[in-house]
Amino acid sequence: MKAVVLLGFWVSPFGQRCQIALAEKGVEYEYREETVPRDKSPLLLESNPVYKKIPVLIHDGKPVCESLIIVQYIDEAWPDRAPLIPADHYGRAQARFWADFVDKKVCESALNLLKLKGEAQEAAKEEFIECLRLLECELGDKKYFGGDAFGFVDIALVPLTSWFYSFGTYGGFSVEEAVPKLVAWSKRCLERESVANSLCDPLKVYEYAKKIFG
Amino acid sequence: MKAVVLLGFWVSPFGQRCQIALAEKGVEYEYREETVPRDKSPLLLESNPVYKKIPVLIHDGKPVCESLIIVQYIDEAWPDRAPLIPADHYGRAQARFWADFVDKKVCESALNLLKLKGEAQEAAKEEFIECLRLLECELGDKKYFGGDAFGFVDIALVPLTSWFYSFGTYGGFSVEEAVPKLVAWSKRCLERESVANSLCDPLKVYEYAKKIFG
Repeated sequence: MKAVVLLGFWVSPFGQRCQIALAEKGVEYEYREETVPRDKSPLLLESNPVYKKIPVLIHDGKPVCESLIIVQYIDEAWPDRAPLIPADHYGRAQARFWADFVDKKVCESALNLLKLKGEAQEAAKEEFIECLRLLECELGDKKYFGGDAFGFVDIALVPLTSWFYSFGTYGGFSVEEAVPKLVAWSKRCLERESVANSLCDPLKVYEYAKKIFG
Repeated sequence: MKAVVLLGFWVSPFGQRCQIALAEKGVEYEYREETVPRDKSPLLLESNPVYKKIPVLIHDGKPVCESLIIVQYIDEAWPDRAPLIPADHYGRAQARFWADFVDKKVCESALNLLKLKGEAQEAAKEEFIECLRLLECELGDKKYFGGDAFGFVDIALVPLTSWFYSFGTYGGFSVEEAVPKLVAWSKRCLERESVANSLCDPLKVYEYAKKIFG
């Protein structure tokens, strides 16, 4: 086993966050694809006994779980290159707040948008768009969420953008029309090799979504 | 306004986390009680426009929201005394994992235990006890979750222990019988002034719970 192993699943935005962070840091690692949800590997079950899910980063044999915690770990374990979290404590708190917002609000409403129908789906769509608008407002005219440097909030959010086509198709709306500046930001992120190499083709994501959510 | 202001609500475990962290650091601050959920103060609405809820820490006029993010902020803004998060990056990731587990799993099952009835309540109770057992196992024979030093996971969990009497009464079980070592840990924590001064009387918590959950 290499010193750094990442257990992931190709379409998971959470696994992709870790891939992007490792690429930004230039860390060499072994990627192991997990067949989710069936046939979880013994390594996954042993490394993440609490949640039994990807992503898991295994560094020198020690597992780290939960994607945002992994990204912070990566930033702290390889501090010499590409700082992902601001140095000042207020900036750090703000970055953590918005990354946590992506997990708590954006992901939740996005999942509901995919799996619910009728009025409940409509409510999820409204909430999802409202969340994206808040993020667009927080981004403002900055290049990235943290300013000129690509960082924690960008990494938390950008993998979801390869699902934007699916969200729009399920919800019957255009994400680009709803939040044009946020979509422009996602295109800027995609110019980075770390992001381009980690994200999926939106049409393949949609094929996958159809298999899971119908 | 003082340089440091905390917006809290007396019975909230989330506000209490911040009180404990500030006390551990010896930070002088102004505590402002919020009447929740009615009559939110303009300062709360303006400081936490996304969630509109306590706790909010306002430091030199700048607001920080979400209790675990506030505790990390306090640790980083006042680094000279009582480190709350381990110095090594693996220990930091573990501390973040378990604190996050308290938020994601313990709080959720605890809330369901209070508000649901019948079979759903029974399921919530089983999940709650299972979560506490995992935490007890993680604690092991250590004094605190981080070892000899009181820290992040202790602060995340200990305010919930003043609700243990309510959880037990609603669920018809004894938390102490289910997780005796965890209850012994909570008593050790209560020997600290920072904790004793921040937590509520369990009977007052129960009176409050009855008003809210019936």
